[in-house]
Amino acid sequence: MLLSTLTPIAMTTPIPTRTQVVIVGAGPAGLLLGQLLARAGIDNVLLEQRSGEYVLGRIRAGVLEQVCIDLLDEAGVGERMHREGLVHHGIELAFGGARHRIDMSALTGGKTVMVYGQTEVTRDLMDARSAAAQPTVYEAADVAIHDFDSDRPRVSYTKDGVRHEIACDFIAGCDGFHGVCRASVPAERIQQHERVYPFGWLGILADVPPVADELIYSNHERGFALCSMRSKTRVRHYVQCSLDDKVEDWSDARFWDELRSRLDPAAAAALQTGPSIEKSIAPLRSFVAEPMRFGSLFLAGDAAHIVPPTGAKGLNLAAADVRYLSRAFIEFYADRSRAGIDDYSRKALRRVWKAERFSWYMTSLLHKFPSGAGDSGAVGHRMQTAELDWLVHSTAGMTALAENYVGLPFED
Amino acid sequence: MLLSTLTPIAMTTPIPTRTQVVIVGAGPAGLLLGQLLARAGIDNVLLEQRSGEYVLGRIRAGVLEQVCIDLLDEAGVGERMHREGLVHHGIELAFGGARHRIDMSALTGGKTVMVYGQTEVTRDLMDARSAAAQPTVYEAADVAIHDFDSDRPRVSYTKDGVRHEIACDFIAGCDGFHGVCRASVPAERIQQHERVYPFGWLGILADVPPVADELIYSNHERGFALCSMRSKTRVRHYVQCSLDDKVEDWSDARFWDELRSRLDPAAAAALQTGPSIEKSIAPLRSFVAEPMRFGSLFLAGDAAHIVPPTGAKGLNLAAADVRYLSRAFIEFYADRSRAGIDDYSRKALRRVWKAERFSWYMTSLLHKFPSGAGDSGAVGHRMQTAELDWLVHSTAGMTALAENYVGLPFED
Repeated sequence: MLLSTLTPIAMTTPIPTRTQVVIVGAGPAGLLLGQLLARAGIDNVLLEQRSGEYVLGRIRAGVLEQVCIDLLDEAGVGERMHREGLVHHGIELAFGGARHRIDMSALTGGKTVMVYGQTEVTRDLMDARSAAAQPTVYEAADVAIHDFDSDRPRVSYTKDGVRHEIACDFIAGCDGFHGVCRASVPAERIQQHERVYPFGWLGILADVPPVADELIYSNHERGFALCSMRSKTRVRHYVQCSLDDKVEDWSDARFWDELRSRLDPAAAAALQTGPSIEKSIAPLRSFVAEPMRFGSLFLAGDAAHIVPPTGAKGLNLAAADVRYLSRAFIEFYADRSRAGIDDYSRKALRRVWKAERFSWYMTSLLHKFPSGAGDSGAVGHRMQTAELDWLVHSTAGMTALAENYVGLPFED
Repeated sequence: MLLSTLTPIAMTTPIPTRTQVVIVGAGPAGLLLGQLLARAGIDNVLLEQRSGEYVLGRIRAGVLEQVCIDLLDEAGVGERMHREGLVHHGIELAFGGARHRIDMSALTGGKTVMVYGQTEVTRDLMDARSAAAQPTVYEAADVAIHDFDSDRPRVSYTKDGVRHEIACDFIAGCDGFHGVCRASVPAERIQQHERVYPFGWLGILADVPPVADELIYSNHERGFALCSMRSKTRVRHYVQCSLDDKVEDWSDARFWDELRSRLDPAAAAALQTGPSIEKSIAPLRSFVAEPMRFGSLFLAGDAAHIVPPTGAKGLNLAAADVRYLSRAFIEFYADRSRAGIDDYSRKALRRVWKAERFSWYMTSLLHKFPSGAGDSGAVGHRMQTAELDWLVHSTAGMTALAENYVGLPFED
């Protein structure tokens, strides 16, 4: 229903040949940026190579930091999130057959996170964009960016067989890891850092009640497991799997059995099972491109960096980029000041690397590393157990984890 | 002078054919255990394959945790340490051209560490042992341990061409990584965990004033460096080097130049140079043997575990083992209780693994990892910088580091 009303509006909004900011990519980062700019009176066009249905069908993150919540409020799309989202004050770490709660709220002076699916965020942003009547082009093929080293960049694309071009002041590359924006930067001008992990996450979505009130991150000798939820009636659970595994290898029954075997006895007993609505395997990757600005082109979100999902930083980091970038553009148009624009890459990357570090730390702490890999085998498992054993008995250790999990404070 | 008075005493103390505890290895762990047992009225014999001069000539650690200080006091050998040792309230972390102080004392409720060389600790313990007139056999060749699975273990050795045997209740294996005690345990009864690092430490000793009042740990793109000291007139400095390097490759001039290049400008300017008194290269290793008890045989210190020197945990961990083991033996002889003995391995290993974890963390945080290694290349360096950037701005992060550096609290 939503899409049937949305799509006509998006298609019938006239597409200008000149705008202030062209945003490539209509995932949550691009949509959020577009909304913040629109509310500040900055014209923008959103180009998305996929359909709206496709974008909404992607199952992604589900834990929002305060920075993300605040920004969604600022964009005027927080109403449903506050009504339906679940405020979480802590997480649970399971290891050695027992669970230990990290009281994030008590450790960070009252900070919390919000459990609210990325799909829902995207839907709220799509609704708001329709209402704002800023143009969005879905299924824009062969998007290309031009002259982004100059003050007169352009973006071209094909829609319904017809080539179009939009002149603009700035291009925001919110088009994800595989997008055209980063790929358009000459190799000698960009440094790309990557670390791959020797395992993946098998995730399922199912309409059963959550195992516990909060997320359970489990370090187990069989591998990592995560019990999370999207609502009080829908769960999102994961088990660490081999990169060789195929979704077809994993019947629902096998998934539930494996998950149960990786939980502490109380959680295993509380686990309710049901048919999966969605089931997919994702690889884990740490990736950063530096810098994040090239003349009039600005990368944001997954276009510039990927974190492994442990620690739930992906969407939040994209939101942080959008916060910096929207303020930089607004400052530019209000004051003709380039200060925010010129400092965007440095500020964003400083936060990015901290989130990369935290996501790598959480991943290293909780996963089983195959023999021969970096933190491998029995030494790695003993080191993990020692770290966890220290952590759950150290206020400083738990605070260090909590302050990263709820989101580090902003530089400004 | 010291040794000329010590050696005759040690040689003239009669060696019994039966004692309560035979301690293999007269490094600081063995000497400290012997002293604590002697003061509790428990007879013990110390067997050392090297000479006393050789043991004293080994340049090792120089930072004592409170646990180690307390134990040396308990052993009655703390007087000179308190007079000559330097109490340190913090450390400095250098990276990105600046130094950041970690105020350990303020972060841990007043805890401190003592800078006092392991050589001095050993000397004080040797003096005390001479005075206590407990027998020590230096240059004991071909030490062998027998029947340690029974209640009647024996230790044999050759001295001056004559084979001797001592019957005992317990054997304490304090004979280091290359010692005979761990090597005597059948392979199927012991798990040995090892991690090697793709670099070493080149250290020099020189009689010049320290660079600063506290230790400087430097993360630099050329590699790790550490400015430490043994006194206000003697320094112990290190630079990370290749495992292929030989001491002969490193003239004093090259060492000082390299060290200077890895320091922040202020430290580089303050660096005073002079001829090296000692210069050596040590590899870095993480090693743990599990369990630490086999019947009547108890491993302690380097015989059971090795940490890389970053974080200064080696001697302190040996002292922690000796604390647990001395209490277990004293409890056994006082109350005929086996509780301490039976729990020794579990308790010691729990602490060992935490120190292993911390030492690995400090090593990973501060060293340059060659391409292809675990935390390698540019990603690794960016992750390190992000961690350090977070750490020095986070009270929780600094506290987590400080509480490990000064020494975690004991389980009992």
